[in-house]
Amino acid sequence: MPTYKAPVDDALFLLNDVLHFDRYGNLPGFADASPDIVEAVLREAAKFSEEVLTPLNRVGDKEGCTRHADGSVTTPAGFKDAYKQIVEGGWIGISVPAEYGGQGLPATLTEVVNEFLCSANMAFAMYPGLTQGAIAALLAHASPELKTKYLPKMVEGVWTGTMNLTEPHCGTDLGLLRAKAVKQSDGSYKITGTKIFISAGEHDLSDNIIHLVLARIEGAPAGTKGISLFVVPKILVNDDGSLGARNGVSCGSLEEKMGIHGNSTCVMNYDAATGWLVGEENHGLSAMFTMMNEARLGVGVQGLAQSEVAYQNAAIYAKERLQGRSLSGVKYPDKPADPIIVHPDVRRTLMTIRAFNEAARALVLWTSLKGDVARRSEDDKERQSADDYMGLLTPVIKGVLTDGGFANTVMAQQLFGGHGYIAEHGMEQFVRDARIAQIYEGANGIQALDLVGRKLGKDGGRALMAFFNEVSGYIKDKSADETMKAYVTPLGVSLAHLQQASMWFMQNAMSKPDNAGAGATDYMHMFGLVALGYMWCKIAEAVIAKLPKANGSTPRYSAKLVTARFFMERMLPETAVHLARIQSGSGSTMELPDEAF
Amino acid sequence: MPTYKAPVDDALFLLNDVLHFDRYGNLPGFADASPDIVEAVLREAAKFSEEVLTPLNRVGDKEGCTRHADGSVTTPAGFKDAYKQIVEGGWIGISVPAEYGGQGLPATLTEVVNEFLCSANMAFAMYPGLTQGAIAALLAHASPELKTKYLPKMVEGVWTGTMNLTEPHCGTDLGLLRAKAVKQSDGSYKITGTKIFISAGEHDLSDNIIHLVLARIEGAPAGTKGISLFVVPKILVNDDGSLGARNGVSCGSLEEKMGIHGNSTCVMNYDAATGWLVGEENHGLSAMFTMMNEARLGVGVQGLAQSEVAYQNAAIYAKERLQGRSLSGVKYPDKPADPIIVHPDVRRTLMTIRAFNEAARALVLWTSLKGDVARRSEDDKERQSADDYMGLLTPVIKGVLTDGGFANTVMAQQLFGGHGYIAEHGMEQFVRDARIAQIYEGANGIQALDLVGRKLGKDGGRALMAFFNEVSGYIKDKSADETMKAYVTPLGVSLAHLQQASMWFMQNAMSKPDNAGAGATDYMHMFGLVALGYMWCKIAEAVIAKLPKANGSTPRYSAKLVTARFFMERMLPETAVHLARIQSGSGSTMELPDEAF
Repeated sequence: MPTYKAPVDDALFLLNDVLHFDRYGNLPGFADASPDIVEAVLREAAKFSEEVLTPLNRVGDKEGCTRHADGSVTTPAGFKDAYKQIVEGGWIGISVPAEYGGQGLPATLTEVVNEFLCSANMAFAMYPGLTQGAIAALLAHASPELKTKYLPKMVEGVWTGTMNLTEPHCGTDLGLLRAKAVKQSDGSYKITGTKIFISAGEHDLSDNIIHLVLARIEGAPAGTKGISLFVVPKILVNDDGSLGARNGVSCGSLEEKMGIHGNSTCVMNYDAATGWLVGEENHGLSAMFTMMNEARLGVGVQGLAQSEVAYQNAAIYAKERLQGRSLSGVKYPDKPADPIIVHPDVRRTLMTIRAFNEAARALVLWTSLKGDVARRSEDDKERQSADDYMGLLTPVIKGVLTDGGFANTVMAQQLFGGHGYIAEHGMEQFVRDARIAQIYEGANGIQALDLVGRKLGKDGGRALMAFFNEVSGYIKDKSADETMKAYVTPLGVSLAHLQQASMWFMQNAMSKPDNAGAGATDYMHMFGLVALGYMWCKIAEAVIAKLPKANGSTPRYSAKLVTARFFMERMLPETAVHLARIQSGSGSTMELPDEAF
Repeated sequence: MPTYKAPVDDALFLLNDVLHFDRYGNLPGFADASPDIVEAVLREAAKFSEEVLTPLNRVGDKEGCTRHADGSVTTPAGFKDAYKQIVEGGWIGISVPAEYGGQGLPATLTEVVNEFLCSANMAFAMYPGLTQGAIAALLAHASPELKTKYLPKMVEGVWTGTMNLTEPHCGTDLGLLRAKAVKQSDGSYKITGTKIFISAGEHDLSDNIIHLVLARIEGAPAGTKGISLFVVPKILVNDDGSLGARNGVSCGSLEEKMGIHGNSTCVMNYDAATGWLVGEENHGLSAMFTMMNEARLGVGVQGLAQSEVAYQNAAIYAKERLQGRSLSGVKYPDKPADPIIVHPDVRRTLMTIRAFNEAARALVLWTSLKGDVARRSEDDKERQSADDYMGLLTPVIKGVLTDGGFANTVMAQQLFGGHGYIAEHGMEQFVRDARIAQIYEGANGIQALDLVGRKLGKDGGRALMAFFNEVSGYIKDKSADETMKAYVTPLGVSLAHLQQASMWFMQNAMSKPDNAGAGATDYMHMFGLVALGYMWCKIAEAVIAKLPKANGSTPRYSAKLVTARFFMERMLPETAVHLARIQSGSGSTMELPDEAF
């Protein structure tokens, strides 16, 4: 059985020493997030994740969800009790404004908590996670009446939320969407259509399920400009807030899938279900994207979370499994063989994963902090620049953290040899669960296209230029500092690669957009490497500032400097091959006729 | 439901135009392998794979194997009938000498057939595949009596074979092996112990199962030098060849695993089972390695096979799935959207997989042809140099084709978006099945260590030097040929990287072996890229020679030139980053103390 220990200390180090959380006291909610409150919240979330959710992870995978003849769905044994604790602990609303029952704490904290929940039990964590996404969309776009009616119960968690986009013929290309909405005289709509891949679409954890549904109002324009967003409760809610009649929405079947078996993935049938418009008519996509952007950051966190828990179990196994002797001479002569951690290839694997995880965690928190600033700052310019940063980094975090997260679970599984392939060790579940994160909320190829096709050129490239200025300014600033040289020098090389790639797109993709498309995934990964490299510099800087004072606890911090060097020597240089691929253009990629495949 | 069409034409092109099979007529068995016989064999294997095995692939995954209270195991519905056809078709013995009932055809042909079987149904193909491995070990090491007793039935397929190495505490490090063998007065041995992860250990497909088992004879030295190999039949065989009493070996349980559910993975209990020594006492490991080397090549083929079938289904889906419009303008105006194959990132994915598959197939056949030469040539020098080549390339093929094969199934699955995660499309099964190939028959990290630690320096680096000379000679030879420049120039760059890495090991790993260990996996992949690049050059050369004569069938051949260019532009340049990693040494990899993990 796999174990999990939430990296509370690492999160605290990042919040306090790298992000300097204390400097943001002027933002609403941040004053309440005093160091001791933050630590108490994280330790509580850690305890719940480790003790309650971790043991349910394999149960959920084995049992899965069950749909009954009446369309109801039962979650795996233990999920209901665990979910009760989510509600009792107020975990869903940590960062929701107090007027809707939340605690108003920084969203950055929610991301840390969500990492812990997802490491412990990704399939379970999706239930509250989707509810948080739905809350975000309603907060941003719903009328005051809808907010008052739905948000408090969702924030409390006694009602959960979903997002309904995909239809059988329509995934990425939402312009093809067919679900219909017909306006009623009372201002409501009747929604009809079939939605697929609806996570948490039906289950037994909450009293009601609030579906956010994309549909086309009768007579609306074709394509993406005729799509509206609706709130469609599973059970209609009376004006006094009590539950009324069952609405015309039901789960038609559960999908049989590769992983996240503990989460119910539903085909949802809407049969003249009553719904209410969220935001403006025909502006549903932009409303849904509020939810999507939150969700994409959250999915990036899932990638990191699976990578972290897989790493922890691989590290334990590598220290316990005795097999062979060190190439440089016997290390544990009292044992029949050395633990496999003495082997350089095993070390390489563990170092690769941790060099990714620790920087990825920093990047997630760094970016969510920008999100907090974008939502809460009173300074227009500060808000805009934070929002630019969020928009630019969201596809990078989604794509790179889930690709890397999956690859890392595979590498961690590999350390177990044959035992990694066997279900009881739990490593293969991490692989199967992590896999979905590369696919949903926009497959990673779409993230790359969003980055290259939309975000790079937006507002005359303002966000990209700001990022380049920040990183190059940082490098310049530190270049005279001998202690930082080992970190900022390689970052400078890779930043130059990224700038060359950006320039190449400017010069070659205007006239031939396929040149951008063919290089998009490489660009996204290159961007991710530079962003992670930048995080390692920030971490190294914080460690170096801390080290002289650290005394007894030095090993944990000095380990970060070794890991930073590993990243610089062995991972960051990949930017060179990404650049070479991008600069080779789309020629050989696009030359063959379709029928040659 | 996924489909499969065996790449018969590609295999024929490789055998005839790239490998020039006709030039080997002087080798025993090759004269029988006339072009029309070869084609007939391949078309028959294709038909069986496509029509019989492909439809059983998902059945096998869903149903899995069932162990009954008496220890017997039932395979999935349809497997028994399909296996009957394996026996009737004589598929197991294609390349086995006629004196044991085989057809004596080149082993190269067996590899092509095995690719088809594995693409169609990997879990099924393992039953005959393991039997072929056991046959190889008995052919090479067993006494004439044992051969006569066991081989004909195994070659026919009415008895199957297994290999029993792993024990719960002992995988890679066979020196820790505990299974005991006690010599009896009649020359037989009583074998006692527990073996795990035994593929095809117990099942209902054959009348008998012939286990090859590693065990330690009472009083034998500790470590790997005290291990012997035994043949232990499930049912004892009387002197007249009839089946006698049940032997003391049974299946204790089936492993619940990530994939290859159609194959029974058994815990095997040996309880004073009667066995006979194969080869010499205490020389079991080298005897087992005969089987392992065949098996490792075969596992490389599994990686290719899953990559091929995943590619085919992804290509079909990419041409059918309508979503979005081409970046360079609408391509299919009569449809509601363009098929996703118009998108450069989808193309990139498909091109990457096919550029790998076509060269990997060439490399497998090229290497098995060397194997045929090594086993059959009458020229000592030719045999030795072919054997050198086999030894050098076997770990590369095993490691690189299974790592690449797995990565490709993941990429192919990705093209399906959410549908790829759903079981009914079958793509996620390819991923789960392909995963085991990176692990068994020596995890890929062990392949890398075998290559770097054992094969590079063997016989004063003779094999490596021969490989370098061959490739650099080829490049030199073609460098003046304008039509070949686009292929041999990049190959020259990457060969130089490989040579630099080899030199770096020579200079830095003698005194510090961890420097070799920390770079081993990168070196293996680098080697694989160069070998695949060399194959692309050979393929391009054959196509260019063929093109003027090809007329009507030109598109298939000219597609190869585009794919070769894609490989050179977008895949081969990865050697640079592998070199950079290797040259960074083992410093940051090994610096942290074990307890820091």
